[in-house]
Amino acid sequence: MNESRLLEEIERRSRELSGRGVVVRGPGDDCAVLDLTAGTLITVDHLVAGRHFDAGRCTVGEIGRKAVARSVSDIAAMGGTPLVGLATGCLPHGYAEGGALFESMSEWALRWGCPLAGGDISTSDGPMVLTVTVLGSSHGARGPVYRDGARVGDAVYVSGRVGGAVRSGRHQTFEPRVVEGRWLCSALGAGLHAMIDISDGAGRDGGRVARASGVRIELEASRLPLHADACGWREAVREGEDYELLFCVGEGVMVPACCPETGTPMTRIGRVVAGSGCVVIEPGGAEFDASAMGWEHD
Amino acid sequence: MNESRLLEEIERRSRELSGRGVVVRGPGDDCAVLDLTAGTLITVDHLVAGRHFDAGRCTVGEIGRKAVARSVSDIAAMGGTPLVGLATGCLPHGYAEGGALFESMSEWALRWGCPLAGGDISTSDGPMVLTVTVLGSSHGARGPVYRDGARVGDAVYVSGRVGGAVRSGRHQTFEPRVVEGRWLCSALGAGLHAMIDISDGAGRDGGRVARASGVRIELEASRLPLHADACGWREAVREGEDYELLFCVGEGVMVPACCPETGTPMTRIGRVVAGSGCVVIEPGGAEFDASAMGWEHD
Repeated sequence: MNESRLLEEIERRSRELSGRGVVVRGPGDDCAVLDLTAGTLITVDHLVAGRHFDAGRCTVGEIGRKAVARSVSDIAAMGGTPLVGLATGCLPHGYAEGGALFESMSEWALRWGCPLAGGDISTSDGPMVLTVTVLGSSHGARGPVYRDGARVGDAVYVSGRVGGAVRSGRHQTFEPRVVEGRWLCSALGAGLHAMIDISDGAGRDGGRVARASGVRIELEASRLPLHADACGWREAVREGEDYELLFCVGEGVMVPACCPETGTPMTRIGRVVAGSGCVVIEPGGAEFDASAMGWEHD
Repeated sequence: MNESRLLEEIERRSRELSGRGVVVRGPGDDCAVLDLTAGTLITVDHLVAGRHFDAGRCTVGEIGRKAVARSVSDIAAMGGTPLVGLATGCLPHGYAEGGALFESMSEWALRWGCPLAGGDISTSDGPMVLTVTVLGSSHGARGPVYRDGARVGDAVYVSGRVGGAVRSGRHQTFEPRVVEGRWLCSALGAGLHAMIDISDGAGRDGGRVARASGVRIELEASRLPLHADACGWREAVREGEDYELLFCVGEGVMVPACCPETGTPMTRIGRVVAGSGCVVIEPGGAEFDASAMGWEHD
């Protein structure tokens, strides 16, 4: 299927979007037209074959899912709700599954509440490169949850479980924590100080919160909620691709043990102190610089 | 420079964006936060090395410029005004000019009124792939100008001159017709029925307007305003990459000879009749199917 026909297919399938939710006019024109309000969130993420997925080991459906899920997870990390998306694909010459790939992205986007309102397709002699832009609304009462709100005395929590995401294949099938992020905003309000999704490892992403907030984060190795197939805390902190939420709450703020809508557990894993960086402390007291442990973009 | 450092550079440079225009919070968090209103336009375009530009024959500045200009041109084609952008780059391993490239995209985006509020960077062993998402506002009085508003009896116009864009290098240095698109909305109001930017050739893009509107478009070969270095009407209709505006106005609507702010000429090149497709008619009366003449996405 050539690009024109593929684009037409996508436009045909998506025409029903117009007039739905925030989409005044969907794909098929020079731009989509949206009705958006104050506090709109926007993010874009890459998915590159050989880098973010192994084209030989995952299905077209898994590729499409992960491309959308990565951007939706960014919206979740702000406590927001996905509204609308755009997808682009630079596909290898002669790639036969473009239709199925865009159908997969389109379906996952719909499922997560951000129907695709536009996009672009081209071909190259390189690996597949997908980008997904997602717009979302901030939480009405809490507003967007930034990385820079952590304060000395805060407790640090993580949603779900971490570790072993790549080996287990969970990095291709994770559920972005949209429901959990929104619930945290509703339940904790101003007590929710800072939040990030763990894509590059709890150490590196914790380090980002620490740096943005001008504080030091201390994680306790023994408290990390590991998946049954994870190989110890080092892997969990290092590997990334968990797409769980790491968040900081004010002193004395009660965090329920799990999100009532999904049952996802919320675990206290550390604290915010004065200083800089992010460290992991083993039960014996040994400290490891966690900001340097994790996926380094090379 | 590795990806983390490049991202930090970009974030540092862009931090001043927060609180400016629609950008409540710029790059550096999971998402950017925007204050947008009803009628927001959104578009995304690819720029792929070897496909949309020849990496050996253009400067980093030209690559960055074209990546942004393509998306800005889509906003212009709706009669809109650019507001904010996002840029991603999948760069070849070891590419040394990532910093200069993002600086160029950032500067052109600022110049065209859509400061970059976020993005993503990765590397691959394939050709460079850039994507730029741009959001814009619709014209306050006219609203967005779609492709599907052409009516039988309309006159068809084009802005500027066409032809020879690739050979001359103009495809790398064109000025998106934002001022002209906005002026057409103000000057013609509801008399401006449909508009598109000519990226795939006047024939193919005229054909898109015809199909969306359910009409036939007849262009007169002798009326096409060719650049001095263009090789006849066939090349101009076929080649694309002109990024001029093709627009349809109601019967009897007076279109000024040029845009007063920029001096860009507006030339009547054809008419809208009942039927389907887009044809070019030579002075002798011979008709050519123009919808099939132009850049075919393969």
